[in-house]
Amino acid sequence: MLKIKIIVIDRTRSPFLKQGESFYLDRLRRYANAEWLEIKPARITQGRPVDDILEAEGKLIAKRFVEREYVIALDRSGKVYNSKGLAARIEQLSFHNNRLTFIIGGPLGLSKGILGNANEVFSLSKLTLTHEMSRLLLLEQLYRSFTIINGEKYHK
Amino acid sequence: MLKIKIIVIDRTRSPFLKQGESFYLDRLRRYANAEWLEIKPARITQGRPVDDILEAEGKLIAKRFVEREYVIALDRSGKVYNSKGLAARIEQLSFHNNRLTFIIGGPLGLSKGILGNANEVFSLSKLTLTHEMSRLLLLEQLYRSFTIINGEKYHK
Repeated sequence: MLKIKIIVIDRTRSPFLKQGESFYLDRLRRYANAEWLEIKPARITQGRPVDDILEAEGKLIAKRFVEREYVIALDRSGKVYNSKGLAARIEQLSFHNNRLTFIIGGPLGLSKGILGNANEVFSLSKLTLTHEMSRLLLLEQLYRSFTIINGEKYHK
Repeated sequence: MLKIKIIVIDRTRSPFLKQGESFYLDRLRRYANAEWLEIKPARITQGRPVDDILEAEGKLIAKRFVEREYVIALDRSGKVYNSKGLAARIEQLSFHNNRLTFIIGGPLGLSKGILGNANEVFSLSKLTLTHEMSRLLLLEQLYRSFTIINGEKYHK
Protein backbone atom coordinates (compact mmCIF):
# COMPACT_ATOMS: atom_id res chain seq x y z
CA MET A 1 0.00 0.00 0.00
CA LEU A 2 1.25 3.48 -0.84
CA LYS A 3 2.61 5.37 2.18
CA ILE A 4 1.62 8.98 2.44
CA LYS A 5 3.28 11.08 5.11
CA ILE A 6 1.96 14.55 5.76
CA ILE A 7 4.27 16.78 7.77
CA VAL A 8 2.75 19.94 9.22
CA ILE A 9 3.95 22.60 11.61
CA ASP A 10 2.11 22.79 14.93
CA ARG A 11 -1.10 21.14 16.01
CA THR A 12 -4.39 22.34 14.57
CA ARG A 13 -5.99 24.92 16.79
CA SER A 14 -9.30 25.50 15.04
CA PRO A 15 -11.78 22.93 16.40
CA PHE A 16 -13.79 22.69 13.17
CA LEU A 17 -10.72 22.33 10.97
CA LYS A 18 -9.40 19.64 13.30
CA GLN A 19 -12.66 17.73 12.87
CA GLY A 20 -12.41 18.16 9.12
CA GLU A 21 -8.86 16.81 9.10
CA SER A 22 -9.90 13.65 10.96
CA PHE A 23 -12.82 13.23 8.60
CA TYR A 24 -10.70 13.33 5.45
CA LEU A 25 -7.74 11.49 7.00
CA ASP A 26 -10.07 8.57 7.72
CA ARG A 27 -11.27 8.61 4.12
CA LEU A 28 -7.73 8.84 2.77
CA ARG A 29 -6.76 5.78 4.83
CA ARG A 30 -9.07 3.67 2.69
CA TYR A 31 -6.55 4.14 -0.11
CA ALA A 32 -3.17 4.73 1.49
CA ASN A 33 -1.21 4.18 4.65
CA ALA A 34 -1.40 7.80 5.76
CA GLU A 35 0.75 9.21 8.54
CA TRP A 36 0.11 12.66 10.01
CA LEU A 37 3.13 14.27 11.64
CA GLU A 38 2.91 17.51 13.60
CA ILE A 39 6.22 19.29 14.17
CA LYS A 40 6.69 21.66 17.08
CA PRO A 41 6.84 25.22 15.71
CA ALA A 42 9.93 27.36 16.26
CA ARG A 43 9.54 30.26 18.68
CA ILE A 44 8.42 33.48 17.05
CA THR A 45 10.09 36.10 19.20
CA GLN A 46 10.37 39.82 18.61
CA GLY A 47 13.24 40.64 16.34
CA ARG A 48 13.91 37.03 15.34
CA PRO A 49 14.27 37.04 11.55
CA VAL A 50 11.65 35.05 9.64
CA ASP A 51 14.35 33.12 7.77
CA ASP A 52 15.84 32.05 11.08
CA ILE A 53 12.48 30.71 12.28
CA LEU A 54 11.88 28.91 8.97
CA GLU A 55 15.37 27.39 8.95
CA ALA A 56 14.86 26.06 12.49
CA GLU A 57 11.55 24.47 11.45
CA GLY A 58 13.12 23.20 8.23
CA LYS A 59 15.74 21.32 10.23
CA LEU A 60 13.05 19.63 12.33
CA ILE A 61 11.12 18.73 9.16
CA ALA A 62 14.22 17.30 7.45
CA LYS A 63 14.83 15.03 10.46
CA ARG A 64 11.60 13.24 9.60
CA PHE A 65 12.65 12.42 6.05
CA VAL A 66 13.57 8.84 5.26
CA GLU A 67 15.40 7.29 2.29
CA ARG A 68 13.64 7.00 -1.03
CA GLU A 69 10.62 9.12 -0.34
CA TYR A 70 9.31 11.62 -2.83
CA VAL A 71 8.86 15.00 -1.19
CA ILE A 72 6.16 17.46 -2.23
CA ALA A 73 6.12 20.84 -0.53
CA LEU A 74 2.96 22.94 -0.56
CA ASP A 75 3.48 26.59 -1.39
CA ARG A 76 1.55 29.28 -3.21
CA SER A 77 4.50 29.59 -5.63
CA GLY A 78 4.12 25.96 -6.69
CA LYS A 79 2.53 24.20 -9.61
CA VAL A 80 -1.22 24.64 -10.00
CA TYR A 81 -3.25 21.54 -10.85
CA ASN A 82 -6.88 20.92 -11.44
CA SER A 83 -8.25 17.89 -9.59
CA LYS A 84 -7.94 15.52 -12.56
CA GLY A 85 -4.38 16.67 -13.19
CA LEU A 86 -3.48 16.25 -9.53
CA ALA A 87 -4.93 12.73 -9.51
CA ALA A 88 -2.98 11.85 -12.66
CA ARG A 89 0.23 13.20 -11.15
CA ILE A 90 -0.24 11.26 -7.91
CA GLU A 91 -1.02 8.07 -9.81
CA GLN A 92 2.10 8.54 -11.95
CA LEU A 93 4.28 9.24 -8.89
CA SER A 94 2.93 6.18 -7.08
CA PHE A 95 4.17 3.92 -9.91
CA HIS A 96 7.76 4.87 -9.07
CA ASN A 97 7.60 5.73 -5.38
CA ASN A 98 6.28 3.77 -2.47
CA ARG A 99 6.39 6.82 -0.23
CA LEU A 100 4.99 10.26 -0.92
CA THR A 101 5.63 12.96 1.64
CA PHE A 102 3.72 16.24 1.69
CA ILE A 103 4.86 19.23 3.73
CA ILE A 104 2.78 22.21 4.82
CA GLY A 105 4.53 24.97 6.71
CA GLY A 106 3.30 27.10 9.59
CA PRO A 107 1.92 30.66 9.43
CA LEU A 108 5.20 31.89 7.91
CA GLY A 109 5.46 29.15 5.29
CA LEU A 110 8.45 26.93 4.51
CA SER A 111 12.17 27.65 4.39
CA LYS A 112 14.04 28.19 1.13
CA GLY A 113 15.94 25.01 1.93
CA ILE A 114 12.81 22.87 2.16
CA LEU A 115 11.27 24.45 -0.94
CA GLY A 116 14.51 24.16 -2.89
CA ASN A 117 15.20 20.55 -1.95
CA ALA A 118 11.66 19.21 -2.36
CA ASN A 119 11.13 17.02 -5.42
CA GLU A 120 8.12 19.15 -6.31
CA VAL A 121 6.15 22.14 -5.09
CA PHE A 122 2.35 22.14 -5.41
CA SER A 123 0.04 25.13 -5.03
CA LEU A 124 -3.52 24.53 -3.81
CA SER A 125 -4.77 28.00 -4.69
CA LYS A 126 -3.45 31.37 -5.78
CA LEU A 127 -5.28 32.72 -2.75
CA THR A 128 -3.42 32.93 0.54
CA LEU A 129 -4.89 30.24 2.76
CA THR A 130 -4.30 29.84 6.47
CA HIS A 131 -1.92 26.94 7.02
CA GLU A 132 -4.72 25.09 8.82
CA MET A 133 -7.11 25.56 5.88
CA SER A 134 -4.38 24.26 3.54
CA ARG A 135 -4.23 21.05 5.55
CA LEU A 136 -7.94 20.45 5.18
CA LEU A 137 -7.82 21.22 1.47
CA LEU A 138 -4.80 18.96 0.88
CA LEU A 139 -6.47 16.03 2.67
CA GLU A 140 -9.70 16.56 0.76
CA GLN A 141 -7.86 16.71 -2.56
CA LEU A 142 -5.79 13.60 -1.79
CA TYR A 143 -8.97 11.70 -0.97
CA ARG A 144 -10.57 13.11 -4.14
CA SER A 145 -7.51 12.06 -6.19
CA PHE A 146 -7.85 8.44 -5.09
CA THR A 147 -11.54 8.38 -5.95
CA ILE A 148 -10.59 9.71 -9.42
CA ILE A 149 -7.69 7.21 -9.80
CA ASN A 150 -10.04 4.36 -8.83
CA GLY A 151 -12.95 5.62 -10.93
CA GLU A 152 -15.14 5.82 -7.86
CA LYS A 153 -17.92 8.16 -6.90
CA TYR A 154 -16.83 11.00 -4.63
CA HIS A 155 -18.76 10.67 -1.37
CA LYS A 156 -19.54 14.04 0.14
CA MET B 1 -22.27 49.73 5.55
CA LEU B 2 -21.65 47.52 2.54
CA LYS B 3 -24.27 44.82 2.07
CA ILE B 4 -22.95 41.40 1.14
CA LYS B 5 -25.47 38.75 0.19
CA ILE B 6 -24.26 35.19 -0.22
CA ILE B 7 -26.69 32.91 -2.04
CA VAL B 8 -26.00 29.17 -1.78
CA ILE B 9 -27.87 26.06 -2.80
CA ASP B 10 -29.04 23.83 0.05
CA ARG B 11 -28.17 23.90 3.71
CA THR B 12 -24.69 22.82 4.80
CA ARG B 13 -24.65 19.16 5.77
CA SER B 14 -21.09 18.75 7.04
CA PRO B 15 -21.10 19.64 10.76
CA PHE B 16 -17.52 20.95 10.79
CA LEU B 17 -17.98 23.07 7.66
CA LYS B 18 -21.18 24.51 9.15
CA GLN B 19 -19.21 25.52 12.24
CA GLY B 20 -16.56 27.07 10.02
CA GLU B 21 -19.16 29.06 8.11
CA SER B 22 -20.59 30.54 11.33
CA PHE B 23 -17.09 31.35 12.51
CA TYR B 24 -16.15 33.33 9.39
CA LEU B 25 -19.62 34.81 8.90
CA ASP B 26 -19.34 36.35 12.37
CA ARG B 27 -15.94 37.78 11.48
CA LEU B 28 -17.19 39.11 8.14
CA ARG B 29 -20.05 40.89 9.94
CA ARG B 30 -17.51 43.17 11.61
CA TYR B 31 -17.00 44.76 8.20
CA ALA B 32 -20.20 44.28 6.23
CA ASN B 33 -23.89 43.66 6.61
CA ALA B 34 -23.70 40.03 5.51
CA GLU B 35 -26.77 38.02 4.61
CA TRP B 36 -26.59 34.23 4.10
CA LEU B 37 -29.35 32.83 1.90
CA GLU B 38 -29.86 29.11 1.42
CA ILE B 39 -31.99 28.13 -1.57
CA LYS B 40 -33.84 24.81 -1.67
CA PRO B 41 -32.09 22.55 -4.19
CA ALA B 42 -33.97 21.23 -7.22
CA ARG B 43 -34.77 17.53 -7.18
CA ILE B 44 -32.10 15.35 -8.74
CA THR B 45 -34.11 12.49 -10.19
CA GLN B 46 -32.95 9.76 -12.50
CA GLY B 47 -32.97 10.88 -16.10
CA ARG B 48 -33.54 14.55 -15.30
CA PRO B 49 -31.05 16.49 -17.41
CA VAL B 50 -28.45 18.45 -15.44
CA ASP B 51 -29.30 21.65 -17.35
CA ASP B 52 -32.92 21.28 -16.29
CA ILE B 53 -31.92 20.99 -12.62
CA LEU B 54 -29.58 23.98 -12.91
CA GLU B 55 -32.19 26.11 -14.70
CA ALA B 56 -34.73 25.37 -11.96
CA GLU B 57 -32.22 26.40 -9.29
CA GLY B 58 -31.22 29.42 -11.38
CA LYS B 59 -34.81 30.66 -11.37
CA LEU B 60 -34.98 30.39 -7.58
CA ILE B 61 -31.66 32.23 -7.28
CA ALA B 62 -32.77 35.01 -9.65
CA LYS B 63 -35.87 35.59 -7.52
CA ARG B 64 -33.59 36.73 -4.71
CA PHE B 65 -31.89 39.42 -6.79
CA VAL B 66 -32.76 43.04 -6.09
CA GLU B 67 -32.17 46.23 -8.05
CA ARG B 68 -28.68 47.67 -8.27
CA GLU B 69 -26.74 44.84 -6.79
CA TYR B 70 -23.48 43.64 -8.26
CA VAL B 71 -23.58 39.90 -8.81
CA ILE B 72 -20.48 37.71 -8.58
CA ALA B 73 -20.89 34.02 -9.38
CA LEU B 74 -18.32 31.52 -8.15
CA ASP B 75 -17.19 28.99 -10.71
CA ARG B 76 -13.98 27.17 -11.51
CA SER B 77 -14.07 28.81 -14.97
CA GLY B 78 -13.92 32.28 -13.43
CA LYS B 79 -11.20 34.80 -12.83
CA VAL B 80 -8.38 33.72 -10.50
CA TYR B 81 -7.19 36.25 -7.92
CA ASN B 82 -4.55 36.16 -5.27
CA SER B 83 -5.74 37.47 -1.91
CA LYS B 84 -4.36 40.99 -2.39
CA GLY B 85 -5.93 41.18 -5.84
CA LEU B 86 -9.26 39.97 -4.51
CA ALA B 87 -9.17 42.56 -1.72
CA ALA B 88 -8.35 45.33 -4.24
CA ARG B 89 -11.22 44.23 -6.49
CA ILE B 90 -13.71 44.13 -3.62
CA GLU B 91 -12.60 47.55 -2.43
CA GLN B 92 -12.95 48.95 -5.94
CA LEU B 93 -16.39 47.41 -6.39
CA SER B 94 -17.56 48.74 -3.04
CA PHE B 95 -16.86 52.34 -4.19
CA HIS B 96 -19.56 51.99 -6.85
CA ASN B 97 -21.92 49.43 -5.37
CA ASN B 98 -23.64 49.30 -2.04
CA ARG B 99 -24.62 45.68 -2.54
CA LEU B 100 -22.39 42.80 -3.56
CA THR B 101 -24.03 39.43 -4.11
CA PHE B 102 -22.05 36.21 -4.31
CA ILE B 103 -23.54 32.97 -5.61
CA ILE B 104 -22.28 29.44 -5.04
CA GLY B 105 -24.14 26.61 -6.77
CA GLY B 106 -24.91 23.13 -5.52
CA PRO B 107 -23.06 19.90 -6.35
CA LEU B 108 -23.79 20.40 -10.06
CA GLY B 109 -22.71 24.04 -10.17
CA LEU B 110 -24.59 27.01 -11.62
CA SER B 111 -26.75 27.35 -14.73
CA LYS B 112 -25.47 28.96 -17.92
CA GLY B 113 -28.05 31.69 -17.35
CA ILE B 114 -26.70 32.60 -13.92
CA LEU B 115 -23.07 32.43 -15.08
CA GLY B 116 -23.82 34.43 -18.24
CA ASN B 117 -25.80 37.16 -16.50
CA ALA B 118 -23.54 37.62 -13.48
CA ASN B 119 -21.50 40.82 -13.50
CA GLU B 120 -18.41 38.77 -12.81
CA VAL B 121 -17.31 35.19 -12.24
CA PHE B 122 -14.61 34.42 -9.65
CA SER B 123 -12.68 31.17 -9.24
CA LEU B 124 -11.41 30.22 -5.78
CA SER B 125 -9.14 27.44 -7.01
CA LYS B 126 -8.39 25.47 -10.14
CA LEU B 127 -9.07 22.41 -8.01
CA THR B 128 -12.61 21.08 -7.87
CA LEU B 129 -13.91 21.89 -4.41
CA THR B 130 -17.07 20.53 -2.84
CA HIS B 131 -19.69 23.27 -2.89
CA GLU B 132 -19.63 23.25 0.91
CA MET B 133 -15.87 23.72 0.99
CA SER B 134 -16.24 26.63 -1.47
CA ARG B 135 -18.56 28.37 0.96
CA LEU B 136 -16.04 28.16 3.77
CA LEU B 137 -13.24 29.36 1.51
CA LEU B 138 -15.31 32.28 0.15
CA LEU B 139 -16.23 33.45 3.66
CA GLU B 140 -12.63 33.16 4.83
CA GLN B 141 -11.37 35.11 1.80
CA LEU B 142 -14.00 37.84 2.20
CA TYR B 143 -13.00 38.25 5.83
CA ARG B 144 -9.34 38.25 4.77
CA SER B 145 -10.09 40.86 2.08
CA PHE B 146 -11.52 43.27 4.63
CA THR B 147 -8.53 42.86 6.92
CA ILE B 148 -6.30 43.68 3.91
CA ILE B 149 -8.50 46.66 2.86
CA ASN B 150 -8.36 48.02 6.41
CA GLY B 151 -4.66 47.30 6.90
CA GLU B 152 -5.44 45.09 9.86
CA LYS B 153 -3.78 41.99 11.21
CA TYR B 154 -5.44 38.76 10.11
CA HIS B 155 -6.66 36.99 13.24
CA LYS B 156 -6.43 33.25 12.89
